[in-house]
Amino acid sequence: MDFQNYFPIWTKLTTSQQEQLLGGLMERNVSKGTVLHNGNMDCTGLLLVKTGQLRAYILSDEGREITIYRLFDRDMCLFSASCIMRSIQFDVTIEAEKDTVIWIIPADLYQGIMAESAPVANYTNELMATRFSDVMWLVEQIMWKSLDKRVAAFLLEETSIEGTNTLKITHEAIANHLGSHREVITRMLRYFQSEGMVNLSRGTVEITDTHKLESLCDN
Amino acid sequence: MDFQNYFPIWTKLTTSQQEQLLGGLMERNVSKGTVLHNGNMDCTGLLLVKTGQLRAYILSDEGREITIYRLFDRDMCLFSASCIMRSIQFDVTIEAEKDTVIWIIPADLYQGIMAESAPVANYTNELMATRFSDVMWLVEQIMWKSLDKRVAAFLLEETSIEGTNTLKITHEAIANHLGSHREVITRMLRYFQSEGMVNLSRGTVEITDTHKLESLCDN
Repeated sequence: MDFQNYFPIWTKLTTSQQEQLLGGLMERNVSKGTVLHNGNMDCTGLLLVKTGQLRAYILSDEGREITIYRLFDRDMCLFSASCIMRSIQFDVTIEAEKDTVIWIIPADLYQGIMAESAPVANYTNELMATRFSDVMWLVEQIMWKSLDKRVAAFLLEETSIEGTNTLKITHEAIANHLGSHREVITRMLRYFQSEGMVNLSRGTVEITDTHKLESLCDN
Repeated sequence: MDFQNYFPIWTKLTTSQQEQLLGGLMERNVSKGTVLHNGNMDCTGLLLVKTGQLRAYILSDEGREITIYRLFDRDMCLFSASCIMRSIQFDVTIEAEKDTVIWIIPADLYQGIMAESAPVANYTNELMATRFSDVMWLVEQIMWKSLDKRVAAFLLEETSIEGTNTLKITHEAIANHLGSHREVITRMLRYFQSEGMVNLSRGTVEITDTHKLESLCDN
């Protein structure tokens, strides 16, 4: 499968725009853990995920993290090319959560096409609206939901992404997704274990009662 | 001053698009406190502020509020027309914070022009990026900043908006901006008063030491 099949508005581009894109594209294999973009880097470009998984997060001055969204196969990352819009006044860090194959579209190339193409500009609008919705969901979670519900929802989301109830994840990593501290997450997971919802062992969280976790979330 | 002078990309529209816009526009005077849009309403349309002040906020199931951004003269409100983009998956409430004069651009009219006009689609992108930046700022505040700093920053912002150090605002209203509870805000303001930073009387918060409030924020 080639780029053409992954870029949803390919057929709405002119032949010249298609040629420009194909001429400027770069395909890259990145290993799990690689930081693809952060606020200090130059404008990396738009990232289209062929296969794999990326995580976008923000960092506090003290080094605390919180995940703002994740990207999977066929998702496009816009904020690694934040230079294309002057109104984007925030920095995100983009990291590969799994070994990932991406296409990089250079920012200036995309910007040029977007300036002249209503379909590309409207597609970009929908991309931004999708991420905006992710962040609004996050605001609602951190404002109105207690941490036990957020941890439960995170564990359920992970089992869905990974397709297994046995998650290879550290307490530190969970804390970094949720903007919390490792000690706080450890205490919460031990409480979940005492309630029979999870089983903890080194580097692993096994979900043993999905229904109980779900009802905790919905409560 | 007319609509043409307030709509920043007016000259980038075709004559036909200009006529469509002028033909579909509605000008409205709304009194302070009017709810212009909420999630249950039909798609209200885009709101362009001629003069006045709007507040966009979200509501929890329990009725708690948090302000996500505010709009002043010449600002455009996009999320009152969230139906124009299917990827906008969240609801905001828009309320007039002062007596306000707005133009309403019907959503379907704007959507039609945006679909064919790259300048309008790119302008809309910049609008959304601006609000996105507001919300990312909010996420950073609620994740990494303690409430004392957030209350101090809010009071300083208000004095700047209102052009006075004597704010006519209730503790309840401050709580609704910050997603907190009235009792918590009252306790915080009393602490600020004991530190000589504010002076409290019924319905009024007077800022008496701006420098001390500022250094609390920056701390």
